[in-house]
Amino acid sequence: MEAASSDHIVRSFDVELQRLSDTVVRAGGLVEAQLNDAMQALIRRDSTQAAEVVAGDARVDALEQDIHDHAVRLLALRQPVGEDLRAIVGALKIAGDLERIGDYAANVAKRAVVVNQAPPVRAVTAVPRMARLAQEIVNDVLDAYVERDVDRAIAVWRRDEEVDELHTSLFRELVTYMMEDPRNITPCTHLMFIAKNIERIGDHATNIAEIIYYLVQGRPLKDSRPKGAQGLGDLPPPTGGGET
Amino acid sequence: MEAASSDHIVRSFDVELQRLSDTVVRAGGLVEAQLNDAMQALIRRDSTQAAEVVAGDARVDALEQDIHDHAVRLLALRQPVGEDLRAIVGALKIAGDLERIGDYAANVAKRAVVVNQAPPVRAVTAVPRMARLAQEIVNDVLDAYVERDVDRAIAVWRRDEEVDELHTSLFRELVTYMMEDPRNITPCTHLMFIAKNIERIGDHATNIAEIIYYLVQGRPLKDSRPKGAQGLGDLPPPTGGGET
Repeated sequence: MEAASSDHIVRSFDVELQRLSDTVVRAGGLVEAQLNDAMQALIRRDSTQAAEVVAGDARVDALEQDIHDHAVRLLALRQPVGEDLRAIVGALKIAGDLERIGDYAANVAKRAVVVNQAPPVRAVTAVPRMARLAQEIVNDVLDAYVERDVDRAIAVWRRDEEVDELHTSLFRELVTYMMEDPRNITPCTHLMFIAKNIERIGDHATNIAEIIYYLVQGRPLKDSRPKGAQGLGDLPPPTGGGET
Repeated sequence: MEAASSDHIVRSFDVELQRLSDTVVRAGGLVEAQLNDAMQALIRRDSTQAAEVVAGDARVDALEQDIHDHAVRLLALRQPVGEDLRAIVGALKIAGDLERIGDYAANVAKRAVVVNQAPPVRAVTAVPRMARLAQEIVNDVLDAYVERDVDRAIAVWRRDEEVDELHTSLFRELVTYMMEDPRNITPCTHLMFIAKNIERIGDHATNIAEIIYYLVQGRPLKDSRPKGAQGLGDLPPPTGGGET
């Protein structure tokens, strides 16, 4: 990662910023692959693949550490201002969100191992639909970052509501199965946590969208997120009677 | 928050760093209060207090934004290096973790509203025990930050395992209640999520401990956390047979 001390090429600041940005994109690609593999491990009941995802999380953490170190070095040595400063702080923050998404993907894989140990449950088919949406959103937000595309970032920011709605209906479905048969309770609780992990992945993708907006526009996106203070993701906004 | 433009006092950099640090401590105090109030709302079945916690989360978010803005301004204007640079980047990161802890406290409050709408469940008494531990840990890590005390930070870092162990036993207890009576399923799932939120609060307190270590020592704490790749918080590390 570091140029040898005998390297006579002094990289321009723009090149360094591009390198930093590229590492963020690389971390994003790795996280996308982790999320995809975790869902495949769940759908195909493949605990070996699940274990690989869990082990792979260390690479995501290492990349986040590299991004942190590079960003701090650039802050110290190049003393940036304005847009360049926002680019570096933005990269730092996005790397943190990507590392969390990676964690959640690894958690999905860990739970897949446990879910796979029980007989198949019907609800497992509903979870991948929610996951595909989250994967699209993560993919879109990484494109938005590469292109520094504010409109695309805003579009991602708005889609988080879809993830929450799917989460609500999935949660209700799982409660139904749990009430039908006590043997469903344990596997369904794991699916609930998997669904919650996916919902949080959508959440962090939304964070990344806000950071992209900030680093391009120089000011924060609206304070109130589409989710705002409304729902928990598995509950719709309170309308009166308590229900799930 | 900003000095008037006619203010003739040019603040020294040390004063600015202290102000930044003080704002982080203030955000920490607010988050501690939010967490305490959320747990009180659950224990006392007080949905009015719960609603106040939810509304109060906006103040936490606003403080995090202030810290971000101040940090970025200091980076641009003062062009710090070494220990001062780590202090500013550290404040940025800690503020992000505090904002997440605040979110989880608000989520506990939202769920308390729903839990309160059903008749009381026995398991509600087990959750506060876990919450008190998380509160101690958050309190300890904020002390560690104020004192820049590495040993105290490491002690916090190690205690996260206790939270995970409590989480595991609470999870098992909840599954038992759910199997006893289908009417327990819905309230118990909410308690499970409350427990997961508390576990994540412990997680973020551990993050803060790592940041304190980094900003004092100038290098990261061990790559592998006490939790490592082991458990999910509600499951012990896999020993063979799948169980919960």
